[in-house]
Parts: sequence; C-alpha cells; structure tokens
Amino acid sequence: MRTRVAVVGAGPAGLLLSHLLDAEGVDSVVVETRTRDHVESRIRAGILEQSTVDVLTAAGLGGRLAAQGDRHRGIHLQWPHERHHLDFETLIGRSVTVYGQTEVQKDLGAAVRQPVLYGVRDTAVHDAESERPYLTFEDAEGHRQRLDAEVVVGCDGSFGPSRGSVPQAVRQTWERTYPYSWLGILADVAPSTDELIYAWHPDGFALHSMRSATVSRLYLQVPNGTPVRDWPDDRIWEALATRLGHGQDGWQLTPGPITDRSVLPMRSFVQQPMRHGRLFLAGDAAHIVPPTGAKGLNLAVADVALLAPALASWLLRGDPALADAYPGTALRRVWRCTHFSWWMTTMLHTGGDPFDAQLQLSQLRRVTTSEAAARELAENYAGLPIGF
Amino acid sequence: MRTRVAVVGAGPAGLLLSHLLDAEGVDSVVVETRTRDHVESRIRAGILEQSTVDVLTAAGLGGRLAAQGDRHRGIHLQWPHERHHLDFETLIGRSVTVYGQTEVQKDLGAAVRQPVLYGVRDTAVHDAESERPYLTFEDAEGHRQRLDAEVVVGCDGSFGPSRGSVPQAVRQTWERTYPYSWLGILADVAPSTDELIYAWHPDGFALHSMRSATVSRLYLQVPNGTPVRDWPDDRIWEALATRLGHGQDGWQLTPGPITDRSVLPMRSFVQQPMRHGRLFLAGDAAHIVPPTGAKGLNLAVADVALLAPALASWLLRGDPALADAYPGTALRRVWRCTHFSWWMTTMLHTGGDPFDAQLQLSQLRRVTTSEAAARELAENYAGLPIGF
Repeated sequence: MRTRVAVVGAGPAGLLLSHLLDAEGVDSVVVETRTRDHVESRIRAGILEQSTVDVLTAAGLGGRLAAQGDRHRGIHLQWPHERHHLDFETLIGRSVTVYGQTEVQKDLGAAVRQPVLYGVRDTAVHDAESERPYLTFEDAEGHRQRLDAEVVVGCDGSFGPSRGSVPQAVRQTWERTYPYSWLGILADVAPSTDELIYAWHPDGFALHSMRSATVSRLYLQVPNGTPVRDWPDDRIWEALATRLGHGQDGWQLTPGPITDRSVLPMRSFVQQPMRHGRLFLAGDAAHIVPPTGAKGLNLAVADVALLAPALASWLLRGDPALADAYPGTALRRVWRCTHFSWWMTTMLHTGGDPFDAQLQLSQLRRVTTSEAAARELAENYAGLPIGF
Repeated sequence: MRTRVAVVGAGPAGLLLSHLLDAEGVDSVVVETRTRDHVESRIRAGILEQSTVDVLTAAGLGGRLAAQGDRHRGIHLQWPHERHHLDFETLIGRSVTVYGQTEVQKDLGAAVRQPVLYGVRDTAVHDAESERPYLTFEDAEGHRQRLDAEVVVGCDGSFGPSRGSVPQAVRQTWERTYPYSWLGILADVAPSTDELIYAWHPDGFALHSMRSATVSRLYLQVPNGTPVRDWPDDRIWEALATRLGHGQDGWQLTPGPITDRSVLPMRSFVQQPMRHGRLFLAGDAAHIVPPTGAKGLNLAVADVALLAPALASWLLRGDPALADAYPGTALRRVWRCTHFSWWMTTMLHTGGDPFDAQLQLSQLRRVTTSEAAARELAENYAGLPIGF
C-alpha cells in the first residue's frame, strides 16, 4: 500500500488529521490497533476550548456540536464555605463548551473519507530519517502489510510505537507523576450544577462535571493505588457531598445510579522533538497532562490544526516552512498547557503539607478577587489561539 | 514607667508605629536590644512598594525619599539569551522606588519624638491577656525596669520575645525552608542596569539590584550552608557575569570593589493570630518571607499602617472595631505576599529537577508575553493597597 501521510492511531488526533488533510487534498491512511467500537466508546475528556470548537466547526464537524454541546460561561471555584464563579465570557470574551470526546470521536468517525484500518497489530515505523518512511503491521485479517508514505504521523498516544521510534540519542523527555489519582464516575442523574465546580477541600480535591443534561461526571482525589472496590456508591456520594459543599448556602448534590467508575493516575509527560525526519508526533504521543484544566484533547486538536496545513503546504506545494516550524510552534503551546495543567493540579489537590494548603487558599482567593489573576486563569482555561 | 503603647523593637516597624501613633496623639515607648548605630547600619531591603512610599510620605517622611529615592518603572526578567522588561507603570499605573531600608531607618530615627530606649536586655511581655499588660527589661545602664501600658506591640522580628509570648495553645505557625540561600554583595560601582534584573540561569538565580547611583547590590543563588570564604571576588564576578548574561546583546556587567558580602538563608514563616489580648504582632515578628519579590519591609509597613489608626481609634475614642479587625485584615495581606514571595522564589531558583526547569521557563515566557500574567506579577510586586 502507498499513501502520502501514514497516520498511526485513530483517536481524535489521528482522525481529525485525516479529515483535515483530506480537505487540503492530501491522501492518508490511518491504522489503529483497537476496533472502531472501542475507540468510539472510550470515556475521556469533555471540555472543548474555544479554539477547538473553532477548528472542528471550520472542518465541517460543528453540526451536532452546536446542537448538543453546552456552552459554559466559565467555572466555579470553591473551598469550604466559599464558592466563586469565574465568568470567562466577561473576562476575556471566550469560553468553553461541554461536549464529550466520545461525541467528537463519533462525529469524526462519520466524517472521515480516507481509509482507516482498525484492529491492526504490531505496527512499526521504519526509515523515518529517509525520504521514504513506511509502516509495517498485521491487518485485521492477519495479513502482514507495508504502508509506504511520504510522512508518518504518530497519533498513537502514550503506549503506541511512534514515540519510541524517535531514536533515544535524539529525544528528550520530561516527566512528573503526582502523589494522587482521580476516582471518576459517570452517573445517570442531572448535574447538580450549571457549570463545572472545582473544589479544594482538606479531604482532597473534587470536581463536578457533566456530559449532558441527564449524565453527571464527578471526580474525587484519592491516593495512588486506590482499588475501585474501596469506593462503594455510598462512600462516593458521601465524599462528594462533603467536598462539594452539600448544604452550603442551600446547594444540594443529587446522587444517582453510577454507571461507570475508574481510577485515573495523574501524570505530566513531554517528549521533544515533535518531529524527527519524516516522523511527526501529535497529541498524547508527544505529551500527557493531568486532567485538571482539561487540556489533553484540546492540545491534541491544536497540534493537528498546525500540522495539517503544514503537511499540505510541504507535500503539495513543496514549501517546508510550516513543517519545519511545527516542532517549535507546537512545543510552545505544549509547555504552556503543561504548566497550566500542573498549576491547576497543584493549586487544587491536597498533599498534607499545611504551608502548601495556605498557599493554595491564598492563590484561590487571589484568582477569585483579582481581575488580572482571573484573566490569567481564564485565558489559559478557555485556551490560547492556535499557533499563539 | 507608664505609657499607652509599649513597642518592642526599633526597626522600621517599631519606629514607624511610634511615629504614626504620635501623629494620632497616642503616647508610646519603644525598647530595643541593639544600639541605634547598629539598627541604622544594618543592610536590609531596598525596594519600596507604591503603598509604602505613600504611607511614609503621608507621615511626613517623604523628603529625603523623594530627593534620593529612585523610582523605577518596572523590572527586567531574563533567562539565557532573553531579557524582557516589565513596565509596571504602563501595566498598572503603579511602581516601586529603590531606597534602602537603612535610609528609611535613619529618616525614622530623626523623626521619632517619643522615647526609644536602645541597648536594653531581657525584654519580656507580661499579662497580655489582662487589661494591664507590661514589659520588663534591663535598661542600658543595667537597671531593671517595668513599663506599664494599655497595649504591647511586638515589632521585634523573628528572634524577639513577642512572638513566643502568644501562648502555644493559641498560636499556629506555618514554615517553609528553601533548599538554597543568597550570597549578597555590596559593591562600590555604578549599577550596570537602570532597573533590577531577575535572572533565571541553569547555574542558579542571580539578581542585579542597586542602592544608589554609585552602589550596586547583587545576589547569587548558592547552596545552603555555603561559607562566604568559598566565594572570593573573582568567583563572584565571574558567576554574576555568566548568570546575568554579560556580553548578551552587548550588555556588560562592570565589576567593582566588594564592600560587604554575606549568605542569607531563605525562609517563609507565618504565625497567627497577629493579636492575642492586648499584644499585637507586626512585621517580621509575625511573618518572614524570602527576599525574592522584596516584600519583607513593605509588609511590615503595611501592618503598622493598619495598626496605628486601629490603636488610636480604640485607645482614644473607645472604638475597638479596627483593632478587632487587625489580625484578619493584616493576615490577608500576609498570605498574599507569602504566596507571591514563594511564587517568585520558586519560579526563579533552580533546584536540579529538569521538569521544574521547563515549568519555570514556561512561566517566565508567559509572564513576559501575556498582559494578564504580567499584570498579575506587577500588581503583586508594586504592592496591593493597604487593607485591600
């Protein structure tokens, strides 16, 4: 097989890239180890930055998003006895939209016209440093395949082969693991809040998010290595009620049937360079952020939004400038979002140090009373322009 | 002896309090263990917030300050190959003035009309919980003395007796020691910069400050426990040249004779409450900040600017409202400045962790390119209004 751009991974980064390249007139083939059902049902992020909404809409993917997405004006920040609303619309004229990654994935799955090969195995990247890179893999029918291309793009996340295909002598990595995890649940109950509530509490962080008018998504900070079985329904709802301030100023948390629960570790990871020869990395293949601040999916979309026109310009018109600039331009946003995600995470999670707790409360008070501090949070949360 | 307000400590906090109380018509006596010469020659901070300048000027202490103080528009922030100026005047319409604490101390020494007893020993605070608190001490002539008062104010820093006079059952403390110190020098040479340069460098932080048109003040991050003798003149100037970017874009660091050098540990400390019965704490007696961000002296002035009218209102007019509000109002600013000082410190000092280094650079880039982030730094650095 032969194509212009071989894409590893059919998550949102890979499919959006295929779709954007198609619109530019560049052929691609996507290979994915999972089934289409699997990738379309994975529960992931749900907060889209303004720029992400703009990219998806400009790509013709804005239909269901506009109809079903829930545009929020901002977020609530709280700590015991105080809840404050940050109104991003008023602060900076931009905001976020709640629309599950699952829905983005379905929209992309329905829109993509270029080939996507699901259920492949043993994908490997070859000769990235040459003019003729290629992939090898075993297809869903068990046949060995070779896919020749002009460019390979790794959109295959933390565990895919692309990241490791950049030679060790070339790559640099940075990593931070956090001393806590999130216990996340989905519940069949209307959200008890209009917009997300980020709650600092001495017992640990809690977050009230949502997926739709009838599905709530909630999180609790738990110690690393916590088994899910330690948290039966009653304990979850009790901890959420305490940390989210049930009863405070009359606010009530309504429990409901829990349909999914899992423990998510928290990690920051950055690999550089995001380009090696004719291999490019985008999304989780190059960087992981902890979920506080909701940057993961948005960062993947931003990478791809830079990369698609860069590859089109190079492959169709012979101009390598944007492709050459990609690793630097993308990395600037990666570190901005890595810093912001780290900042949101360390401001909101309790670690047991009393001095840190006071710093966190002082920072939260500042963010909720100073326009400059609130704008700084809002600009980062609602997302900087692509290629800022 | 008897007075209305017994003040422990004749540093800037104690003398300014005596001076402000005098202007309100409240008698005070200050006791100080050191000699006047000693307190007037101690080398300390040199950056006055806008509010500090306003307080001193309103108190009639603005003469020499206006003539000799050097108003800066902002600061320089730099890292290898980049130097950026943050113009506080443009960002927020407020700024800072370079005027040594030594000069403030002399101005205060010359202005204070109420008794100041230097060279006392064994000062102790008694009966703070009663209506009749008093101090005991041995005066400079070796006579035991008792000073009866209506209120005692501890302005006696970290090592004075006031802080410990708040009973252990009542007081709460928070502390952080940092894994680095500052080697500070004074040099008889014109500053090589118009405004302060805060420099991040892989070798460690450096700061180019100044005391006057002919005296430079410079600092280098060094490991804790560094003996001054490890740093002869040549090594100091070489490290400063490297970290401050001598030769970068033609900028030159001019060395000169070093007249003073010392190693300063970095510590954050907060004690609460700042009032216990009729004992009030102000300045370093209640809180210590690391010097990055230049908050120590300014915080002491802010405490006293709140406390003087509060005590006058209570003692002269029988209205306890401001005195009752003091611990809460003062503490809000203390934590704001404690957080800001911690933030400046941890953004600029290298600790050896490569992920932290990238977070620092990302934060520095943000502060020097985003108006919201720059304003947030500027508002904190130039100082929030008294009693914000």
